[in-house]
Amino acid sequence: MAEKKQQSSAPAKDDNKITTRAANYSEWYQDIVYRAGLAENSDVRGCMVIKPNGYAIWENMQKALDGLFKATGHVNAYFPLFIPKSFFSKEEQMAEGFAKECAVVTHYRLKSIPGQGVVVDPEAKLEEELIVRPTSETIIWNTYRNWIQSYRDLPLLINQWCNVVRWEMRTRLFLRTAEFLWQEGHTAHATQQEAEAETLQMVRVYQKFAEEWMAMPVIVGPKSEGQKFPGAIYTLCIEAMMQDGKALQAGTSHFLGQNFAKAFDVTFQNTEGKREHAWATSWGVSTRMIGGLIMTHSDDNGLVIPPRLAPTHVLICPMGRTDEERAPAIAAAEKLAAELRALPREDFFGFQPISVKLDLDFKNSPGFRFAEGELKGIPVRVELGPKDLEKQACVVARRDIPGKEGKTMGVPLTEAASRISNLLREIQANLYNRAKTFRDANIRSADSYEQFKEMIEQPGFIWAHWDGTRETEDKISEETKATIRCIPFDRPLEEGTCMVTGNPSQGRVLFARSY
Amino acid sequence: MAEKKQQSSAPAKDDNKITTRAANYSEWYQDIVYRAGLAENSDVRGCMVIKPNGYAIWENMQKALDGLFKATGHVNAYFPLFIPKSFFSKEEQMAEGFAKECAVVTHYRLKSIPGQGVVVDPEAKLEEELIVRPTSETIIWNTYRNWIQSYRDLPLLINQWCNVVRWEMRTRLFLRTAEFLWQEGHTAHATQQEAEAETLQMVRVYQKFAEEWMAMPVIVGPKSEGQKFPGAIYTLCIEAMMQDGKALQAGTSHFLGQNFAKAFDVTFQNTEGKREHAWATSWGVSTRMIGGLIMTHSDDNGLVIPPRLAPTHVLICPMGRTDEERAPAIAAAEKLAAELRALPREDFFGFQPISVKLDLDFKNSPGFRFAEGELKGIPVRVELGPKDLEKQACVVARRDIPGKEGKTMGVPLTEAASRISNLLREIQANLYNRAKTFRDANIRSADSYEQFKEMIEQPGFIWAHWDGTRETEDKISEETKATIRCIPFDRPLEEGTCMVTGNPSQGRVLFARSY
Ligand SMILES: [Zn+2]
Ligand SMILES: [Zn+2]
Repeated sequence: MAEKKQQSSAPAKDDNKITTRAANYSEWYQDIVYRAGLAENSDVRGCMVIKPNGYAIWENMQKALDGLFKATGHVNAYFPLFIPKSFFSKEEQMAEGFAKECAVVTHYRLKSIPGQGVVVDPEAKLEEELIVRPTSETIIWNTYRNWIQSYRDLPLLINQWCNVVRWEMRTRLFLRTAEFLWQEGHTAHATQQEAEAETLQMVRVYQKFAEEWMAMPVIVGPKSEGQKFPGAIYTLCIEAMMQDGKALQAGTSHFLGQNFAKAFDVTFQNTEGKREHAWATSWGVSTRMIGGLIMTHSDDNGLVIPPRLAPTHVLICPMGRTDEERAPAIAAAEKLAAELRALPREDFFGFQPISVKLDLDFKNSPGFRFAEGELKGIPVRVELGPKDLEKQACVVARRDIPGKEGKTMGVPLTEAASRISNLLREIQANLYNRAKTFRDANIRSADSYEQFKEMIEQPGFIWAHWDGTRETEDKISEETKATIRCIPFDRPLEEGTCMVTGNPSQGRVLFARSY
Repeated sequence: MAEKKQQSSAPAKDDNKITTRAANYSEWYQDIVYRAGLAENSDVRGCMVIKPNGYAIWENMQKALDGLFKATGHVNAYFPLFIPKSFFSKEEQMAEGFAKECAVVTHYRLKSIPGQGVVVDPEAKLEEELIVRPTSETIIWNTYRNWIQSYRDLPLLINQWCNVVRWEMRTRLFLRTAEFLWQEGHTAHATQQEAEAETLQMVRVYQKFAEEWMAMPVIVGPKSEGQKFPGAIYTLCIEAMMQDGKALQAGTSHFLGQNFAKAFDVTFQNTEGKREHAWATSWGVSTRMIGGLIMTHSDDNGLVIPPRLAPTHVLICPMGRTDEERAPAIAAAEKLAAELRALPREDFFGFQPISVKLDLDFKNSPGFRFAEGELKGIPVRVELGPKDLEKQACVVARRDIPGKEGKTMGVPLTEAASRISNLLREIQANLYNRAKTFRDANIRSADSYEQFKEMIEQPGFIWAHWDGTRETEDKISEETKATIRCIPFDRPLEEGTCMVTGNPSQGRVLFARSY
């Protein structure tokens, strides 16, 4: 077979430099995703390959989220990948919302034609086409019908980790892909009140995860009518600000009312012996969060990962020009690594040991090796050179503060492990505070539509009055490409008039351009 | 909408009893899967719903296996669900092996016709059909082409956790389903020797997992030519004996040679500057293992789960007829639960705390409550009644030994936590030993084809001489429905003659009927 190499899907540049954020934010993002080995486009249109460095972040996200779900009483299960086409017709909004972008299975067999490869066997046509799930409300509520008979069967508090497919035409690694990984919670309740409490609880779980693990501050509140999930009564969301001032919807929690129970005939006998339809919620976050993580913290040197989600916490670089110099540096590095790994397992790191990598790549210059560690986003680097060792000390560099400012010289080796353990906590807090300061500095208020139109050309979120109608929302979106991101729970109460129609408004809502 | 309940997919019987193994082994299996809440058939042909109790076992399997993979240097990644049809033609054996049973995506859009629901949009036809992955060698090796340039890029030691689809016509929960969950490792190496060592290492990892976590003894060795993976040079496997004497292939590790590197043009520059094709392995285990777990240990009272994989380790049942009797029993139960949960996290339980459930369901009789715990397979039950409490003691019952024999009365509450912790280890060992004793007692030798044909009607494995040819293997399989399960690594060396052809044989191989 011919040995022709297919063109790589990596950026064409060979200079190994990351584009700066100032030069081209979108190229900067793509450079980081490729250069840090997080993901790449596959030969299947719109589908990404999540590379080991990217997947390791997802695994840490999964562990943390899964722990939060279980702590709030949820269990995991798994439902089919395929959804019969007829299920889509049962809930009207769902059909409208997802029909335009779904992968359809029509046949169940190929046949081999010798010399010609394989073709679809026309005789193996499905009676009813199957849709690759874009989300699983329909198949799950069809299943719940048999699981829910009495109020004693409720609540059902179930989550699923899986892949879903939405046939997106314009894709972007992590942020928008045809196939992505996510979790989807689907709960059933006996009362509206309980389902609404669940909807709120889960968006608060997402907030906690975003703020305490991702170190990404978020704004929490309901979506407007124009932005809610198809099939939901209302949608609560967490919204984060990226470094270019755009919004990223990072998680949503939907109160579905009795829509799916009615569509799939899910009823239960209540305490008084009467049959009622069950109340539903659903909530999800996806690998899109990795995109949000990158764009919240990373810098022109590469990826920055908050320690609680970092696959590797500490990179130790022994140095030396000769074997004589290297041997004691390697020994000290191994000793420190062992000490770090042996620290007591703590909740902060999900009861996992601190993860340490030894860089023994002496072929490259220290500068190159340090830059590689920075590119990959490892939170702490330890430098162990002959001069440090003379003093039984090391240099500790923190990734969140690049350059000399982030370096502490002369850290005694006897104290290094415990100081690094504390430093990891400090970095986590610093990343959150820095992102919050940035975000808060980039939220402004517009008092007229004129002002709004000028402001929206600058990065950031805008507080503005809106009359609460779908029409006005759609008009603003068409004219400015900005959408209502959220009606924050903690917005100030302030009566005013809609910037577009002049009709009364009960308070400002948050507008932004978004991913 | 009409409130008609769809017929449940659960067995029709209402008597709540599990069919005994002796009465009908296959119904017994199905009863356990349904009654213990492990899985059920969905409305999508061949696809199962893995229910929370079943999925919790899978999660524990994943944790243990993932730990073993990482301890041997592997990392996780994620590759696309879809495979372009043309990829199937590139490796001939793959195409032949999987083409007959795959789900084909031909369209990417539905359209809504008001009043009529949704139909497939004929204008949204894919130029090239996509296959839902039945296994990912092709898409992964297509990706590896860009990842592998030099010997420095090797080895690639990558694993993926995902769903796959094989359009099976006759399905059985966990054992054979159209969609199932699995892991698939795909490694690339610079030398044949290294790839073969990896193939062996991974089947040994599977053996370790089967024996030390699943408490399921396995036989390890290569498959015969007729049973190997399409596209492999050879396949190593672990084979277990179920309680009906049938074999279950529980995991496979394939040495793929350079087949996929050649099919997808994956070459690297070796240390001498010459380009070579990379060497490949792949290896996988799936949710099928849950079927094997059930059929290895469970009994006529229900599920039996080895402690290292049990989602709940201990069920504590406080008892009492009045509130006055119940209150101190509940208090003692809560105290014991807290003590068990607070035991130091140990490797044996994957550094997870011991999982304890309190059964406060006083509406039901103690007998009913105990039976429920047994049905679900919880390894240890603690009974806390008024008479036990008078003596500051409890009853500890082990699930692996049903009835009075498995009960220890008068266990002092002060000692209960540590004794239960030890008992869990004892149960794990006992389950393994019992399964091994059973298996070893059900392996016999046949010295003629006559004898073989009689013996194969009885449960168990058969050692027999075979001439090593595909023809003879196929003949035996057609005539007896028994296949060569494995050519065990540790088979005794014994020259003989093939029971069918009389041709020379270097040693006996293991035959059985299988799942
Ligand atoms: Zn109804
Ligand atoms: Zn080639």
